[in-house]
This record gives sequence, structure tokens and C-alpha cells, in this order.
Amino acid sequence: MDPRTVRAAFRDGAAHTTAGLADGYAQANLIAVPRADAYDVLLFAQRNPKPCPLLDVTDPGATSTHLAEADLRTDLPRYRVWRDGVLVDEPTDVTDRWRDDLVTFLIGCSFTFEAALRAAGIAMRHTDQGTTVPMYRTNRPCRPAGRLSGPLVVSMRPIRADLVATAVQVTAAVPAVHGAPVHVGAPEALGIKDIDSPDYGDPAEIRPGEIPVFWACGVTPQAAIGALPFAITHAPGHMFITDVQESTYRSGG
Amino acid sequence: MDPRTVRAAFRDGAAHTTAGLADGYAQANLIAVPRADAYDVLLFAQRNPKPCPLLDVTDPGATSTHLAEADLRTDLPRYRVWRDGVLVDEPTDVTDRWRDDLVTFLIGCSFTFEAALRAAGIAMRHTDQGTTVPMYRTNRPCRPAGRLSGPLVVSMRPIRADLVATAVQVTAAVPAVHGAPVHVGAPEALGIKDIDSPDYGDPAEIRPGEIPVFWACGVTPQAAIGALPFAITHAPGHMFITDVQESTYRSGG
Repeated sequence: MDPRTVRAAFRDGAAHTTAGLADGYAQANLIAVPRADAYDVLLFAQRNPKPCPLLDVTDPGATSTHLAEADLRTDLPRYRVWRDGVLVDEPTDVTDRWRDDLVTFLIGCSFTFEAALRAAGIAMRHTDQGTTVPMYRTNRPCRPAGRLSGPLVVSMRPIRADLVATAVQVTAAVPAVHGAPVHVGAPEALGIKDIDSPDYGDPAEIRPGEIPVFWACGVTPQAAIGALPFAITHAPGHMFITDVQESTYRSGG
Repeated sequence: MDPRTVRAAFRDGAAHTTAGLADGYAQANLIAVPRADAYDVLLFAQRNPKPCPLLDVTDPGATSTHLAEADLRTDLPRYRVWRDGVLVDEPTDVTDRWRDDLVTFLIGCSFTFEAALRAAGIAMRHTDQGTTVPMYRTNRPCRPAGRLSGPLVVSMRPIRADLVATAVQVTAAVPAVHGAPVHVGAPEALGIKDIDSPDYGDPAEIRPGEIPVFWACGVTPQAAIGALPFAITHAPGHMFITDVQESTYRSGG
């Protein structure tokens, strides 16, 4: 399915993970904050480029982006609304929550490189299971910026041991959607106590001979906005599907 | 000479171009603006990553950076002080101009990859001439951000025709210091009327069989701050020499 068709379904109320949809097109994390807090978010992204590779930053109040012919308030499958760091709602449309001073940050998402991984013979367990990719808060602090501070959040994909090096090489080529993994195996060294209890998304079965491989995740800012009065984000795994082809973000492209 | 020794000389008043100094260490452009204008500068950099690859952004009032054990107010060879877009002074020390609300942006500089170019057998004409690299305002507009708008500024190096491809490959590997050229040959297509009259720096002789090759330049923000009340920048060609090895910024590094 093409991006436009998928977004139209979301606009009409469909609400499921976007992994495996619109293959070959970039997907993005969304975080929108009032202009007064936008400097802190922009600086946080600059200081933490691995989890926060910026694909676009809108002008205040804008409801569109040059990444897609879309309405940022309606065209994601599910949003999260935050007040003073507390998750207060998970609607499928945020038109009535939008404000004229909101600056929207669109951050690269690792779903973008999943088609390339599958093309390299690497199965995506969460897609095969029909679940949302598992994500974990780690023990690695991000560099703070103003009022933003929090841990690095990672997504996890179980990869067959003989394909781990391939997965590294395929994803290293697309730094704008998190690039190479930040950690291969040894979840305990990342502070993950129970790999079967992710902080976001659903568990993914790890079979014998498979290694859990961790990529930096664009949910990281959601774990850092506890001190902000108001924010709208995507719901983890429920991304903004852009009209930009994944190949645009390949190194040297 | 190592970075510390070079910076000490600048602190003591030496004031010349930094091209060819402290080989193998990254050099940076500097622009410092009041916190009230910092969002526009940060957004301008995000929207124009080729001329403005950010290596660090300080907290307001800071006089140091994690890039080097240095004082940002004294350790560059020469600065420029801007008021309402007008260049009002070019001191070698800005300690008495510093303000508690200044946010400093350190932007990658193409001098960083000159050692790698020379190692690949490519001479640097400006260094051989003992002059400052020539820089030009082009006819390519940057993406504006708030009150910042202006043209892309480029640096130019004459390269022997048989070495142009090598120069592209060597520099493409270090995107954090501008990466691959933005333009090879045909200066008139960039809006450059007289290649012997650069807008910044000194002319560089182009010999028969050589092609002028243009890289995005970190002077670009200086051409975009006409609407800001106050800014301090480096003087073109007179960079901040960091303690970070150039290899740190190679792709995949």
C-alpha cells in the first residue's frame, strides 16, 4: 500500500502499529510542544542525534510538513497527550488538542529500514507476530537539554546469530533513521531486567540461536519530557508515514 | 603543532588563518547569539545541515565546550562582532564583549579534511600561497528559520582534474565537516561573477588543468544574521581548533 492510502485509513480511525506498512517509505516519530519549550527539544535532539535524528521541524502552529501531503493532527494511527509529564489521553485524532504555538518535531524511525532488513533475509518477529516492536528504557542517560532529561530508549529485534553482522551493515547505511544498533546482545548491560516485559510495545519471542539487537528509538524524547507542561506525541509503534522514500536517507544518497 | 599549543599562541595575540594548523584535529566555525535568538540559529542549522553541521551547542553563558580544553572568548585567532547585522569590530579577544546569555554554536569546518586531502596527494593552494581560503556567497538560498535567512556560502579549492573524484570521495567520508562538495566547476552557475574576487578570504590561483571545487561553508550563518541585534562569530578562515581528532567524524566512526 502507498503512504497516501495508509494515512487515509488512519484518518478514518484505523489504529494499529505501522511496522511493515508502506514498505520503502520513511516513517517518523512525532513530538509537538509549545514554541516556548521548542528550544529545549531541538537542543535535546542536537545533543542526542542517535535516538533523535530530525527529519523536519515545523514552524509554530503548522499542521503539515514537507515530508508528506498530510495533516499532522489526523494522519497518525494513534497519539499520546501529555500534561506535566503525565499521559492523559491516547486519541486517534488531536485536532481539538492542537494549539497555534505548537512546533512539531519529526524524528526518523527504525521501521524505515525494516524493508531493507527483510530484503536481506532478516525476518521481523514483531511483524510476523502481529504485535508492536518491543521498546525499553535503558540505564544510559541522554545528554540533558534545558528541562529535558531522561534515558535512552531502544527498540529490540531478535536476529539470527549468522545475520547480526548483516543487520548492522544494512542499518548503518541509514543514520537518519537511527543507523547501526547501539547494543548487540547482553540486555542486562543496558539495564533491561526482563526482556519479556518491554516498557513500550509488546514482547517479541527470542528463539534459540537468536540475539536481541537494540537500536536507538525515537520514543526517547517521550521519556524526557516529564518537566514540560504540554506535549503531543505519537503512540509508540504508531508512526507518521511519510512520502519520502527510504533510499533518500541512505548514506551518500 | 598540537591544538593546545596553537590555541595558546592565539590567546597570546597571534591572528592568522588556521588552515594547515594542528593537522588531524577538527576545526570549527563559531557563532554566539543571545539565548533569545538561539532557537532561530539552532533551527537554521537543522534546516541547513550541509553548511551548518553542529559539533556542539553550549548552555547560555558558557565559555567552554566539550570539544576542547579552551576558552571560547580568547582561543580563536580573530573574531567578528555584529550589531544589527553590521560588522562593528574584529578583535582577537572578546572577553569584554561576552554576555551571560550567549549560546555558542560550534559548526564543522572544511579545514578539518584538508590533512586527509593532502595525504591523498591533493595540494591546498591557499596554504601553499599563505593566504586564507576563498569563500563566496552563492545564488542558492538557505532554508530560512525565524529571523535568519541568507545565501549558501561556499569555500573553493582548485583541484587537478584527475584528482577531483578523489577529493569528492575523501571529503564525502566526513559529513560533520561539510562532507562532499556541493558544486564542481562552473562557478557562474553558483552565481559567482568573478572567481578572483571572493566575498571572504583571499583569491586562490586556478592553474590550467585545475577545476574550482566548492564545499559548503560554516560562514553561511554569518550571511544570515542581518536581522539579529547581536552576535559574535569567528573571522572567516580564523577557526576554533578543537581537541577532537578528525577520524572521530568519519562515517561509521
